[in-house]
Amino acid sequence: MERIDVALIGAGRMGQVHGPNAANHPGLRLKYVVDPRPDAAAAMASRWGAQVAELDSALADPGIGGVLICSSTDQHLGHALAAVRAGKAVFCEKPIDLDLDKVRKAEPEFAGARFLLGFNRRFDPHFQALKRRLEAGEAGNLESLQLVNHDPAAPPPGFIPTSGGLFKDFTIHDLDLARWLLGEEPSEVFSSASCLVDPEIGRLGDVDTARTLLKTPTGKLCVISNTRRSGYGYDQRIEAYGSKGMLTAANVHANTVVTLNEQGVDAAPIHPNFAERYRAAYAGQLDHFAQVLHGRATAQAGYADGVAALVLAEACQESVRTGAPVRL
Amino acid sequence: MERIDVALIGAGRMGQVHGPNAANHPGLRLKYVVDPRPDAAAAMASRWGAQVAELDSALADPGIGGVLICSSTDQHLGHALAAVRAGKAVFCEKPIDLDLDKVRKAEPEFAGARFLLGFNRRFDPHFQALKRRLEAGEAGNLESLQLVNHDPAAPPPGFIPTSGGLFKDFTIHDLDLARWLLGEEPSEVFSSASCLVDPEIGRLGDVDTARTLLKTPTGKLCVISNTRRSGYGYDQRIEAYGSKGMLTAANVHANTVVTLNEQGVDAAPIHPNFAERYRAAYAGQLDHFAQVLHGRATAQAGYADGVAALVLAEACQESVRTGAPVRL
Amino acid sequence: MERIDVALIGAGRMGQVHGPNAANHPGLRLKYVVDPRPDAAAAMASRWGAQVAELDSALADPGIGGVLICSSTDQHLGHALAAVRAGKAVFCEKPIDLDLDKVRKAEPEFAGARFLLGFNRRFDPHFQALKRRLEAGEAGNLESLQLVNHDPAAPPPGFIPTSGGLFKDFTIHDLDLARWLLGEEPSEVFSSASCLVDPEIGRLGDVDTARTLLKTPTGKLCVISNTRRSGYGYDQRIEAYGSKGMLTAANVHANTVVTLNEQGVDAAPIHPNFAERYRAAYAGQLDHFAQVLHGRATAQAGYADGVAALVLAEACQESVRTGAPVRL
Amino acid sequence: MERIDVALIGAGRMGQVHGPNAANHPGLRLKYVVDPRPDAAAAMASRWGAQVAELDSALADPGIGGVLICSSTDQHLGHALAAVRAGKAVFCEKPIDLDLDKVRKAEPEFAGARFLLGFNRRFDPHFQALKRRLEAGEAGNLESLQLVNHDPAAPPPGFIPTSGGLFKDFTIHDLDLARWLLGEEPSEVFSSASCLVDPEIGRLGDVDTARTLLKTPTGKLCVISNTRRSGYGYDQRIEAYGSKGMLTAANVHANTVVTLNEQGVDAAPIHPNFAERYRAAYAGQLDHFAQVLHGRATAQAGYADGVAALVLAEACQESVRTGAPVRL
Repeated sequence: MERIDVALIGAGRMGQVHGPNAANHPGLRLKYVVDPRPDAAAAMASRWGAQVAELDSALADPGIGGVLICSSTDQHLGHALAAVRAGKAVFCEKPIDLDLDKVRKAEPEFAGARFLLGFNRRFDPHFQALKRRLEAGEAGNLESLQLVNHDPAAPPPGFIPTSGGLFKDFTIHDLDLARWLLGEEPSEVFSSASCLVDPEIGRLGDVDTARTLLKTPTGKLCVISNTRRSGYGYDQRIEAYGSKGMLTAANVHANTVVTLNEQGVDAAPIHPNFAERYRAAYAGQLDHFAQVLHGRATAQAGYADGVAALVLAEACQESVRTGAPVRL
Repeated sequence: MERIDVALIGAGRMGQVHGPNAANHPGLRLKYVVDPRPDAAAAMASRWGAQVAELDSALADPGIGGVLICSSTDQHLGHALAAVRAGKAVFCEKPIDLDLDKVRKAEPEFAGARFLLGFNRRFDPHFQALKRRLEAGEAGNLESLQLVNHDPAAPPPGFIPTSGGLFKDFTIHDLDLARWLLGEEPSEVFSSASCLVDPEIGRLGDVDTARTLLKTPTGKLCVISNTRRSGYGYDQRIEAYGSKGMLTAANVHANTVVTLNEQGVDAAPIHPNFAERYRAAYAGQLDHFAQVLHGRATAQAGYADGVAALVLAEACQESVRTGAPVRL
Repeated sequence: MERIDVALIGAGRMGQVHGPNAANHPGLRLKYVVDPRPDAAAAMASRWGAQVAELDSALADPGIGGVLICSSTDQHLGHALAAVRAGKAVFCEKPIDLDLDKVRKAEPEFAGARFLLGFNRRFDPHFQALKRRLEAGEAGNLESLQLVNHDPAAPPPGFIPTSGGLFKDFTIHDLDLARWLLGEEPSEVFSSASCLVDPEIGRLGDVDTARTLLKTPTGKLCVISNTRRSGYGYDQRIEAYGSKGMLTAANVHANTVVTLNEQGVDAAPIHPNFAERYRAAYAGQLDHFAQVLHGRATAQAGYADGVAALVLAEACQESVRTGAPVRL
Repeated sequence: MERIDVALIGAGRMGQVHGPNAANHPGLRLKYVVDPRPDAAAAMASRWGAQVAELDSALADPGIGGVLICSSTDQHLGHALAAVRAGKAVFCEKPIDLDLDKVRKAEPEFAGARFLLGFNRRFDPHFQALKRRLEAGEAGNLESLQLVNHDPAAPPPGFIPTSGGLFKDFTIHDLDLARWLLGEEPSEVFSSASCLVDPEIGRLGDVDTARTLLKTPTGKLCVISNTRRSGYGYDQRIEAYGSKGMLTAANVHANTVVTLNEQGVDAAPIHPNFAERYRAAYAGQLDHFAQVLHGRATAQAGYADGVAALVLAEACQESVRTGAPVRL
C-alpha cells in the first residue's frame, strides 16, 4: 500500500490519539501538524517525523490526501468545510458542531465528500463482534437494547459551559450506537436526568446522571445509562435482546489476574479511561479512514450520522426540559 | 423450636412451592390443605402428611397459627381477610388483588395483623447479599438502579385476561425490589412498552416488552427491564450504582461447567424458571414467615408494601396509556 | 414411594449431614440413631423424630432396610460387616478402613451386598455435568485430568495420628474421582509432597501439600493437587482435556454479587467448607442410596471402589517414602 | 529517546514478530535485514524501511547497536557469538541451542555481554501482574505452582526431528516461568509423558502430552501441563498457591461478547495462537531490549537463564527415559 500524506489539525487530547495512529499506519504518512499552540505542534511533529504547518498551506499542498480534525469542538465545522472545499478526505472528531442549525445548513457542502465522523465505538472489536453475532441471528430479531456509558470521573466544572451538556457531549456516542445497532431511527425519546455527582455541574445548568429511553416505529426499545462518575473505571457495555436470546459485550479488565484469599475474590479493575478502553477502536477507526482515502471503503459514519445523533441529543435535552417524551 | 400448625390454601403452582417448604420447616407443621379441587388437595396432603380440610374448619381450628394463601389471584384478598379475622398469621402470594380500590378499602382490617406478602425476591440470597453490601457502603450512596426481569417464555394467551397485565402481574416484583433498594418512594413513573413476543397478547390488550423509568424526589433513577420471553432462561439481575462504585447480582447458572472446543466456549445455561432460580428465596421466605409466627420477627413485606407496589403498577399502565410520565 | 426405615450409626460430623438428609427423604424414614455418646444420639433423634437405640437392637429390627454408617473411621468396617450380615443395605462413609489388608480380607463378605461407599463427589451436580459432557464427546477422547482438592484450613494436629495421613484421608476422594472419570485403572503413581502448612503435621510423620501424577496403561495422565490449607475456602475443581477440547468444573461462589469500586473488583468468596460446597452432592448421594434400597438402582460406588482407591492411596504413600514412581 | 540502529537476522516466523516491533519502537531503527532467502529479506526490508544486508557487513557497521537473532535454532548460538564478539547487544530467540554442552562451552564468551533471551512470557502483562501481586504478598509465601501451556494444534511431523523435542522446544518456556516465579532452583524433576495427539510424533521418538513435577529444596511444588494440541486455542495459564491464598492468570478471550440463547451460553474463544496471545508480551520484550540497548536496564532473562532452563529440559527428558525422578 502506497502511503498517502495526511495533515493533523489539533495536537491536543484527541490529536495525541489519532496523530500517532496515522504516523504508524502503513498506508498513511503524517506530513503536517497544525495547532495554534506552537509548542504542542512542534512536539507532535518532531516525535512523529512530521512538519509544523499553517492550516492554509497544509490544505494548499496537493499531496495531502486527508485531514484529521482534532481541533476544539467549536472549530470542527469550520475546519471540516475548509478541508472539504480543498478536496481532501476528512476525518473529524465528534461532534460536528453543537449548533444543529449550523450543522444542517452546512450539510449540502458535504454531499459526496469523503467524510468520516469520530464515532469510535463503531470500531471497537467487542462491539463489532456483538454486531456480527446479532446480524448472524444468534439472538433472533433485535427487540431491545441496553447501552451503558459511564465516565470514570466528572470533568472539571470549567469544561461544562463549552461542552454542549451531557447529551451532546457524552450521550451522543450512545445515540449513534443505538442507531447503528437498531437498524431503525428512534421515533420517541424520553430522558430523565439528575445532578448527583457534582452540584457545580447543576449550577452550570447541566446534569450528570441520566437514563434515556428510545422507542422505534416498530416498537423496539433502547435504554441508555449515563453518568459522569462511576467510581470504578470506564464502564462501557452493550446488551442486545432479541426474539431468540441475548448478546452482551462486557467490560474489559486491565488483565486476567484474580486473587483469592481471606479478603475475598479480587479481580483486576476495568480499563480506567477512554484511551485504554478504546485503543483498538481508535486504531481501527484510523485504519478505516485509510481505506476510505485509498478508495477501498465508504465512510461508515458520515455527516448524516452526525446530524441524526445531534437531533436525538437535542430531543433528550428537550425531554429533560419539558418532563415529557419527544416524538420525532 | 416448637412446631406451629399451618394451613395451606391452594395446592396449585405456588402451593406446590410453599406447601413442601412448610412441611419441611422445623418450626412448622403442615396440618391442612384446602383446595376446591379434591384431587389436588388429597395429593398434596398425603404426600406431606397433612389432612384435607374445608377453609372454614381449618380457620376454626384454634391450633392453626398461620395460613399460607396460594389460591387464585382473585381470591387472595377474600382468603386473607378471612384468615386475619380468624386471628391467624397470614402468608399471602402476591398480588393482594388486582383492584387497587378494593385493596385500599380493606387495608384498615390488616392494621396490626401479622401479614407477609409474597415478594420472594427480597429473600433471594444473591439480592440480599447485594443489599448488605450496599448498606455497608461498598458503592457509596445509591444513585441509580437497573433491574432485569425477563421470563423465559410467554404464558399461554389464556392467562392474559385474568393476569392483571404485564405491570400488575410481573413488573410488580421489580417495583417492590426498587422500593426495597431505593429507600425512597418513586415520585415519577414512565413506561414504554411494546408487543413483540406474541401478537395475541397485544390483541388481548396487553404488552409483553417494557422499560420503566422511575425517579425519586432526590433524583435517584431506576430502570426496570421486562420481557415475557427471553429465549435463554429466567434472567434476574440487579445493578446498583452509587457515588463510589457499583454492585451487581448476576444470573445463576445451572452448574459451573464450561466446554472449550472448536465450537467455542460453552457454559451451562442460566436457571430456566422461577422454581429453580428462587428455590432458596422461597425457602428463606417461608423461614421468615415461621419467624413471624413464632414472634421472632416482623414481616418484612407487609400489606402496605403490596399497596405501594400496586400504585406504581397502575402508574406504569397509565404512562403507557397516555404516553406521558406519571407524577405521584 | 413407600418409606423404608433406616438406622443412623454415628451422630457426629458426618451423621449430622446424612441423618437429616435421610429424615427429609420421601422414600426413607430415620427410625434409629445409634451413638455411644447418649447426648449426641438423643439430640439427633429428638430433632428428627427418631429413637435412640443400641446397635444390636437396631440391626435386629426386621423393619430396618438400611444402615447409614457414620461412626469413627476405625469402626466403619466392623459396623459395615455387622449390617451386611444382618441383611441390611449399607451406606458407609469413606474410608472402609485404613488397613488395606483388613479391607481385602473382608471383601468376600460384601459380595452381592447392597453397599454404597461415601465418595460424595460422584454425586456433585457440577462434576456430574462435567462427566455427562465428557461422555457426550464434547472434549473428544479424554487424554488428561487435573483435579484440585484444597481444604480451607489445616485440621488440628490431634486429628493427624488417626487420620490415615493425607493420602488415605483426603487424596482418596481424588483417587476415586480419577478412576470414575478416566475409565481405566492407573498403572503408575508418583507423588511429591511437602510439609509447608504446619510443621506439627510434619513432626507427626504426615505431609500437608502434595501433587500426585497418575498414568494409565493407554497413556492418560492425571494430576491431583492437594493442600490442607488454601486460605481462601474449599477449592474443588476438575479440568478434563481431550482430543477435541477441554471441560472444566469451576468453584462455586457463595453468591453472584460483585462490587466494582476504587478498591478493585470484589466477588463473593468460594464456598468455605465441605458442608456448603457439597450440600447437593450429599443429598444426591442419599437419594441414590434410597434408590438402591428401593431396588431401583445399583450402588454407583461399591466396596471394590473403596479397595481400589485405598490401593492407590498406599501407592502414593510408598512413592513419597521411596521418592520413586510406583507401578501397579 | 534517540533511535539506535538494529539488525534483524532471520525474516521468518519470529522475525516477522520482532522486526515490526523494532521498526515501530521509538528508540530503535530497523536498519538491516539479514536472511539467506533473498525474497524474505527483501520483503521485510521494503515493508519496514530497512536494507537487505549480509551478516558480516551488518555486524561490521559500527552504527549498529543491537542484533535481533531470529534465525533457525541451530544457528542461534553461532549468530549470537558473532554479534557478541562484534560488541553488539543481542536479543536472541530461545533456545540458545539444543546441545547443552555447546551452550555451556560458549558461556564464558557471554560474560558481561548485553544478552536478552526470548523468554517472552516474562513480559506478558497478565503474568507480570500475577508476579507483582505475588511479590506484594497477596497470596502469602508461595508454596506451589500450576503452569498450563497447551498449543492449539500439533506441528507438522517434519518439524519434530529438528525441534529438540517437546521439553526443549516447548516446555522450556514453562521451566523458565517456574524459575522466574519460584525464586528457587528446582532440585527434583519428574516427567510423565505420552504420545496421544499424533502417532507420527511418537514414531519420531518424541512425545506430545506431558506433566512435569518440579520440587525445590524448600519443598515448593510446581506442575507443568503440556500438550501439542488443545483443540480450543492457545491455553496459557498460571495458578500460584501461597500460605494466604492463590493467584490465577486466566486465558485471554478474543473479545468479551457472550451469547445466551436456546443453545446455551456461548463466549468468544480464547486467543488461537502465540502471535495474538503474546502480542503485548513481544512488544514489551522488545521495549525491554531497547531499554537494555539504551543502558537503562539490565537484561531480565540472560544467558544463564537459558542454560538453567536447558538443564531442566534435559532432566525432563531423562526422567521420561528412565521413568524415575531426576535429582539436580
